[in-house]
Amino acid sequence: MVSNPLVSDRNVEFLLYEVFDVEQICRLPAYQDHSRETFDLILNGARKFAREVVLPTYKPMDAEPAHMVAGGIKVHPAMKALYPKLVEQGGIAATRPYEVGGQQLPHTVATLVALYGMAANLSAVAYLGLTAGAAHLIEAFGSDALKAEVMPRMYSGEWTGTMALTEPQVGSSLTDVRTRATPTDRGHYLLQGNKVFISGGDQDLTENIVHLALARIDGAPPGIRGVSLFAIPKKRLEGSKLVPNDVHCAGAFHKMGWRGIPSIALNFGESGDCHGWLVGPPHRGISCMFQMMNEARLMIGMNAIATASVAYEEALEYARTRPQGRPLGSKDPAAPQVPIIEHADVRRMLLRQKAIVEGALSLGVQTARYADLAAHAATAEERRRALLLLDMMTPIVKSFSAEKGFEANALAVQVHGGYGYTSEYLPEAWLRDQKLNSIHEGTTCMHSMDLLSRKVMAEQGVALRVLGEEISGAIARASAAGVTPAWGEAVGRAVGVVGDLTAYLASLGMSGKVEEMMRHSVDYLDLFSTVAVSWQWLLQAAVAREGLAASRLPPGFYEGKLCAAEYWIRTELPRVDHLAALCRSGEGSYARMDPGWF
Amino acid sequence: MVSNPLVSDRNVEFLLYEVFDVEQICRLPAYQDHSRETFDLILNGARKFAREVVLPTYKPMDAEPAHMVAGGIKVHPAMKALYPKLVEQGGIAATRPYEVGGQQLPHTVATLVALYGMAANLSAVAYLGLTAGAAHLIEAFGSDALKAEVMPRMYSGEWTGTMALTEPQVGSSLTDVRTRATPTDRGHYLLQGNKVFISGGDQDLTENIVHLALARIDGAPPGIRGVSLFAIPKKRLEGSKLVPNDVHCAGAFHKMGWRGIPSIALNFGESGDCHGWLVGPPHRGISCMFQMMNEARLMIGMNAIATASVAYEEALEYARTRPQGRPLGSKDPAAPQVPIIEHADVRRMLLRQKAIVEGALSLGVQTARYADLAAHAATAEERRRALLLLDMMTPIVKSFSAEKGFEANALAVQVHGGYGYTSEYLPEAWLRDQKLNSIHEGTTCMHSMDLLSRKVMAEQGVALRVLGEEISGAIARASAAGVTPAWGEAVGRAVGVVGDLTAYLASLGMSGKVEEMMRHSVDYLDLFSTVAVSWQWLLQAAVAREGLAASRLPPGFYEGKLCAAEYWIRTELPRVDHLAALCRSGEGSYARMDPGWF
Repeated sequence: MVSNPLVSDRNVEFLLYEVFDVEQICRLPAYQDHSRETFDLILNGARKFAREVVLPTYKPMDAEPAHMVAGGIKVHPAMKALYPKLVEQGGIAATRPYEVGGQQLPHTVATLVALYGMAANLSAVAYLGLTAGAAHLIEAFGSDALKAEVMPRMYSGEWTGTMALTEPQVGSSLTDVRTRATPTDRGHYLLQGNKVFISGGDQDLTENIVHLALARIDGAPPGIRGVSLFAIPKKRLEGSKLVPNDVHCAGAFHKMGWRGIPSIALNFGESGDCHGWLVGPPHRGISCMFQMMNEARLMIGMNAIATASVAYEEALEYARTRPQGRPLGSKDPAAPQVPIIEHADVRRMLLRQKAIVEGALSLGVQTARYADLAAHAATAEERRRALLLLDMMTPIVKSFSAEKGFEANALAVQVHGGYGYTSEYLPEAWLRDQKLNSIHEGTTCMHSMDLLSRKVMAEQGVALRVLGEEISGAIARASAAGVTPAWGEAVGRAVGVVGDLTAYLASLGMSGKVEEMMRHSVDYLDLFSTVAVSWQWLLQAAVAREGLAASRLPPGFYEGKLCAAEYWIRTELPRVDHLAALCRSGEGSYARMDPGWF
Repeated sequence: MVSNPLVSDRNVEFLLYEVFDVEQICRLPAYQDHSRETFDLILNGARKFAREVVLPTYKPMDAEPAHMVAGGIKVHPAMKALYPKLVEQGGIAATRPYEVGGQQLPHTVATLVALYGMAANLSAVAYLGLTAGAAHLIEAFGSDALKAEVMPRMYSGEWTGTMALTEPQVGSSLTDVRTRATPTDRGHYLLQGNKVFISGGDQDLTENIVHLALARIDGAPPGIRGVSLFAIPKKRLEGSKLVPNDVHCAGAFHKMGWRGIPSIALNFGESGDCHGWLVGPPHRGISCMFQMMNEARLMIGMNAIATASVAYEEALEYARTRPQGRPLGSKDPAAPQVPIIEHADVRRMLLRQKAIVEGALSLGVQTARYADLAAHAATAEERRRALLLLDMMTPIVKSFSAEKGFEANALAVQVHGGYGYTSEYLPEAWLRDQKLNSIHEGTTCMHSMDLLSRKVMAEQGVALRVLGEEISGAIARASAAGVTPAWGEAVGRAVGVVGDLTAYLASLGMSGKVEEMMRHSVDYLDLFSTVAVSWQWLLQAAVAREGLAASRLPPGFYEGKLCAAEYWIRTELPRVDHLAALCRSGEGSYARMDPGWF
């Protein structure tokens, strides 16, 4: 376990410097202080820290979850010891500008830096990720007073932050938020309501926690346009003193995984004395919150990749060292057993994990690059294109990584055989962790609807056209590098399938058949994701060919990339025809199925 | 939770009396004492007992697993209280002949009776299932002394039994068993060796446990034909007294699920005083053990179905009662929220679960019927056909139910949203239970190799021809009943795909390309299973049409069957073309992938 690299360093180097040429990003004024040297320094620090300091905390924290004692959450002692060290690593404000105390690190790099910590102990680093997102909301939309008082304490890790959206009756339907906010004449509102599933909603790591919560101001219009965003601290500052703010932990959920960070039920204003401060304009809470949700969604996608990655690395090591059985057709029972990686099906399971992990990761870094360009590219047109792609790829990175990551994690258990089912080994714990990622920050279904009804439809499908141009670039690069032509052709054809299907579904929507258009949205997401990941594998194959041509080392690394690309493009990409046929078929069994017929 | 029916009674009735006409089986001499009346009596008893007595033990046993205390396993108090009641239900010898104390119940019925208990608490009933299998081995192959002394105590539940196959260095490779058996001149052997993953290998429920274990007699030839089967009791009878038999519990594995039954490491003969009795001829242990393994494999398939069923029923109830969100396109945020079953994607997830659970169950009952006919059909030819089908379907029932059952269980969690991830609800526990089913009693890969290299290849593919005839019968029944003709055509075409592909793969094997033939064995299993379950859905659709035509009640039940059949045949069956193409393609990425390239 100590030898688990969490994430392949060679692959990170490959993505940053060979596939996405991050040094190009450093030519943008915002990133001009950075260079490969600073990136490598940061990456190496993060790796060492994740492997030596963070990973050993994982198993104990999984075994003994944070729990409630006397009305408050007590975290694991290992978490208490780890938190100040995590803060010291400086991850909270890494991508934020210098003027708020950040390092102005490109997302392209920060994403990979964070990945190591997530792979080592996703719950532990989640305290910081949530804090970063919450502080960023205050940075973007908060009043000057909040920005002065609260934001620096969060970016420095002195206080943590949370995202308090959902309520017992609400789930994904944020329209139905009921928490109430009553204005006072002293600048704050009085909050009253109940929230559930608040990750890190209480802890004994820091003296204060700031909840970024959705609520309705008294008299607000019904529906989503009557929901506002508030900062609600656990304790409020009165002068320089922190006093309780009538925020109460009502209980902790017992979870299947992510056991190092509590998910709690939170009550605001049981005694009518819970102060909250409006963040952003009244009734515009959802659109403000979307900034954080989009960051959070990408973060969940990266968590999913990290969780699949660490399990893949563990399975790989196990398969290389566990002897069992003999080659097919071997007749000599006295011959020594071979490592299980020699069996074709074990290699299939490993290559499938590799294809999922490294395909999703490539897409994740591609998307992080779009985030950098959307904020800092030289021209307005470049920024606009990047933003379109960022928005379109966010549901893919989140949901593909969660859904296929779960499959990859199950395969890591399977490679371990009976041992994989025991907690003497870690794969079962990572499988439990992974399951949450298709649920929180928007279920897979919600993301499929976001993709199909918003992202690809906006402005007559401009995002899809821009994506098509990006993929054409990859096809050209692959062709120039000498990648098997059939692969580029297959990807090109699949892009055509997506385009035609999307146009067809749009026509259904425009003729009022919205139900029919949306019926197979999850299949559409599956199809779209499969094509997007094929694009990334084609790109990686191109760079692998370039690497082999340039005699970069080690050649086996590039050969492995070509095998994984072939695996994905030849075994997974062909599924698109079946999926497209489904989306078009109008197959209506479940639409027709009456709830009483089950 | 108390209202969970575990398994749909109406569906059980449908399968037994409408699809498979079990009363026909009662015309066979072996089953002539039975009738629908006795079956219903037994079924109703099992249902009531499973729902009221067994289910409430599930959550506590999951929360506090059986564990080791002072060298022995202590089971949960709820298990101690439950065991005598389970024994009283009479399940252990249900299908065995009267002369050994059984009820001579057809497997077709016994399988469904057992399903309720498995759905209620699969670990609890596993003690009995293992005992039944072990006792059946003694019945079939044991000496008269063993049959007199040991078997009745097992069939009566006074003692339990286990299956002690694997060893630390062995896993699936039973060729490599090292436990040694040294003959003595007193009828017994002296055993020495270590076993791992022995379910129910120790417990404090009964005064004795009989392990059916594989070992090598001193001087035995190497390889699988040097492995013998032994009965090794925890305590041996000396006169009428039970004395310790040098069998030691070396530790319990901590498991992800199945937490009510311990899986332990077992040491035989630490002090050189472990007596074992040969079962069956020397060196023929594997072929004897296969009888139990095949029963155990079907049992695991049924466990997988039961675990998917109980979660499906729970998700269904949740979806019908949990309000959240509004219909697509609803503009009024003040309108009340609707139950989530109104959302198309929730219905998709439920219908997919239904299609998996009821498709697999139909195939399981079909296979149980073959077991009855293989033993008791009137003519040798009928028995032979049934045996061929039983053997061919066993890996399908086991692996399909485990693999797709896991997907169904994950969907049950997903339907519950955030709550599904908490142990305040049960779906996460059932998901954890389900994961084992693709591993124990042969991994999915082992079953795919069994199917492709043995079952479909034996005697020039006779089993496949017989299956083709069975499926043709179903197509004709569907056509006569007025089922949408395209469904029958699709199934017929898919059978052709399987036949052509199998012939092609056989030709590869015969020309010495065994690696190439076997490379996609897991895809072949997936394809074969998809077709087999489509056959069952076509059959169910036929009977549903017959039911509607005959105005049987309730019509919604039959409509639901037609929806599920349509779902499976139109959305899942079309995957066969992709899978067949893969199996034929020679796609060799993972065959080529060097272990050093990952």
